[in-house]
Amino acid sequence: MTAVAEPTTSGRPLRADARRNYERLLSAAREVFREHETDTSLEKIAARAEVGIGTLYRHFPTRLTLLEAVYRDEVDDLATGTEKLLASAEPWEALERYLHLFMSYATTKRALFHELVDAVGRDAELLTHSRQVINGTAEAVLTRAQEAGVARRDVEVSDMIRLVGGCTMMPEASAEQSDRIIAVVLAGLRA
Amino acid sequence: MTAVAEPTTSGRPLRADARRNYERLLSAAREVFREHETDTSLEKIAARAEVGIGTLYRHFPTRLTLLEAVYRDEVDDLATGTEKLLASAEPWEALERYLHLFMSYATTKRALFHELVDAVGRDAELLTHSRQVINGTAEAVLTRAQEAGVARRDVEVSDMIRLVGGCTMMPEASAEQSDRIIAVVLAGLRA
Repeated sequence: MTAVAEPTTSGRPLRADARRNYERLLSAAREVFREHETDTSLEKIAARAEVGIGTLYRHFPTRLTLLEAVYRDEVDDLATGTEKLLASAEPWEALERYLHLFMSYATTKRALFHELVDAVGRDAELLTHSRQVINGTAEAVLTRAQEAGVARRDVEVSDMIRLVGGCTMMPEASAEQSDRIIAVVLAGLRA
Repeated sequence: MTAVAEPTTSGRPLRADARRNYERLLSAAREVFREHETDTSLEKIAARAEVGIGTLYRHFPTRLTLLEAVYRDEVDDLATGTEKLLASAEPWEALERYLHLFMSYATTKRALFHELVDAVGRDAELLTHSRQVINGTAEAVLTRAQEAGVARRDVEVSDMIRLVGGCTMMPEASAEQSDRIIAVVLAGLRA
């Protein structure tokens, strides 16, 4: 057993513990926000993460820091997920899987968006960054599929973003409905 | 020349004149609302309709009566337009033309919706009526196309409403983009 894995009460293992709480809180917050939009208490999020409210406040001193962290995490997931798809999947499969990633991102985004915009403004770095990530990832995936001849060329990146992102702007799509909608969009994009 | 067509200053010809002003005002209001959402003055609408502001107020004593009339007119157009399609067009052509009707309706609706909901509440008769018209028309057209074997059967009415209606919830789609989006949705719906 190495020093790294040794369960002591100080040093690396403790930091790992804090990191795990941080991840649990982010994950719980994402779930709770998606279920209840932002109309929910921080206590509920701490309970879902199975940590005390003090631990939540240590990581996220304000409600806004938690919202921002969840949102940034979603944007990062979309960026890194897309990079992996571009590196490992065939053009059409990458497009299919990308639309699911993007739908998931957009669903969380809808839950957070209004409260974030009200708090930080539409031009805050986080929101301009997220628009860049959306446009950049969607363009990379769609262009690659178009150049490979598997996606129709008369569709623009903003059309695809609007088709998938727009659907999430109406509340209460089930996972099954999201899947059906993506299937229709994919059939529609096929060359 | 018959009495009906006689241009007098009273009776039927005057009513026709008033009717024409009413239609011009509705049409101008729809255009202006679509261009500027509801953030626009009644003076601008009167000017667009080429009638005096007094004429506008005679027909629409308050801003809300004008909003409601435009919205009701759109809902009526969707209902009667769909009836005509069902009576005269083949199942697939009816679906194609319906999606254009619905996109046009939804684009105006987006411009009016928040102000109307704030003023009259989501459960006002006008808004519940519009939901019934949307669901009823979309279901009639999609079911007919599915039963004729031209539209895929694993799509639900609410999916189609969400795909087209959702797109209009993001601002600033051009007519060209709306047409491209409908083309993708139609290709996706094709059996």
